[in-house]
Amino acid sequence: MKKFEEKTIKSETLFKGKVISLKVDDVQLPNGKTSKREIINHPGAVAVLAVKEDGKIIMVEQYRKALERSLLEIPAGKLDEGEEPKVTAERELEEETGYGCKSMSHLISFYTSPGFADELVHLYIAEGLYVMEDSKGTDEDEFVELVEITVDEALNLIKNQVIYDAKTSYAVQYLQLQQALKNS
Amino acid sequence: MKKFEEKTIKSETLFKGKVISLKVDDVQLPNGKTSKREIINHPGAVAVLAVKEDGKIIMVEQYRKALERSLLEIPAGKLDEGEEPKVTAERELEEETGYGCKSMSHLISFYTSPGFADELVHLYIAEGLYVMEDSKGTDEDEFVELVEITVDEALNLIKNQVIYDAKTSYAVQYLQLQQALKNS
Repeated sequence: MKKFEEKTIKSETLFKGKVISLKVDDVQLPNGKTSKREIINHPGAVAVLAVKEDGKIIMVEQYRKALERSLLEIPAGKLDEGEEPKVTAERELEEETGYGCKSMSHLISFYTSPGFADELVHLYIAEGLYVMEDSKGTDEDEFVELVEITVDEALNLIKNQVIYDAKTSYAVQYLQLQQALKNS
Repeated sequence: MKKFEEKTIKSETLFKGKVISLKVDDVQLPNGKTSKREIINHPGAVAVLAVKEDGKIIMVEQYRKALERSLLEIPAGKLDEGEEPKVTAERELEEETGYGCKSMSHLISFYTSPGFADELVHLYIAEGLYVMEDSKGTDEDEFVELVEITVDEALNLIKNQVIYDAKTSYAVQYLQLQQALKNS
């Protein structure tokens, strides 16, 4: 898929951080003119939809500095270099929630902000959850609180903008869809 | 929602571009230690789910330089400064597809990448579509091709990673949910 390809004339990396890096590319457009593209490179991430046998979804509340507020989200985290996404998913579920799972299946992957970033999120579904006895806990600069809610509660929290991010909204809608398909 | 708030000790803006800006904040964590947060500020965007009377979804194919490939997405675009999202939605639908609509309703908003960016996407649903006679067309550095597909085709394109972004995957799943609810 290279339709309307924009050829790189010059690429300048302006920032390399711990998580993201920023470059500005001069590009040649399909009509021959030139333009600039501001691009964020990101290592990619996973998110985990984990539903307990009682139907409750496992979520975490955490502060998001970019938004200057906390959000309620499904467990998620960045890929370590060279790490297989499924391994990241199992690690993040354990670290953020203390739960292990019998199976971890890939549901969908999507780019979150294709207009300016290459972040790809891999969404997994965890089944057969059990409490781990000696969970590793979160990274030292990460603070999260476990919250377990029903699909109906999640829908209310979407309305109230407490759940307010794309991957979690997608996951909640996925559960709604499964319920509706079961009833049809 | 300020749980686990991270207080800003120092904030340094390292880049101000045409679309995004980048800052690095030194923060004080809830345990008193300090850390750094790399943050992208973005003006926000809209996306438009537009379904024709024959059930086909209006999408656009466009090149995404951040990914070095093209994607098939629902029409979308950045907010101009001070612009009301609904107005942006009407403008982007017209510019990218040549369609006008009788009603444009807000469906959901979500942050796309809360871990590092403040981009908020407002998803609208356009109904009563009609072809505009003198459409304005896209910006001069924007090249898109109109593609109209059914929900089933969209699901296949998700499988084949031609549709591969969060807002479009959410919108397609929304249509699946509406179909399932109608049948239940």
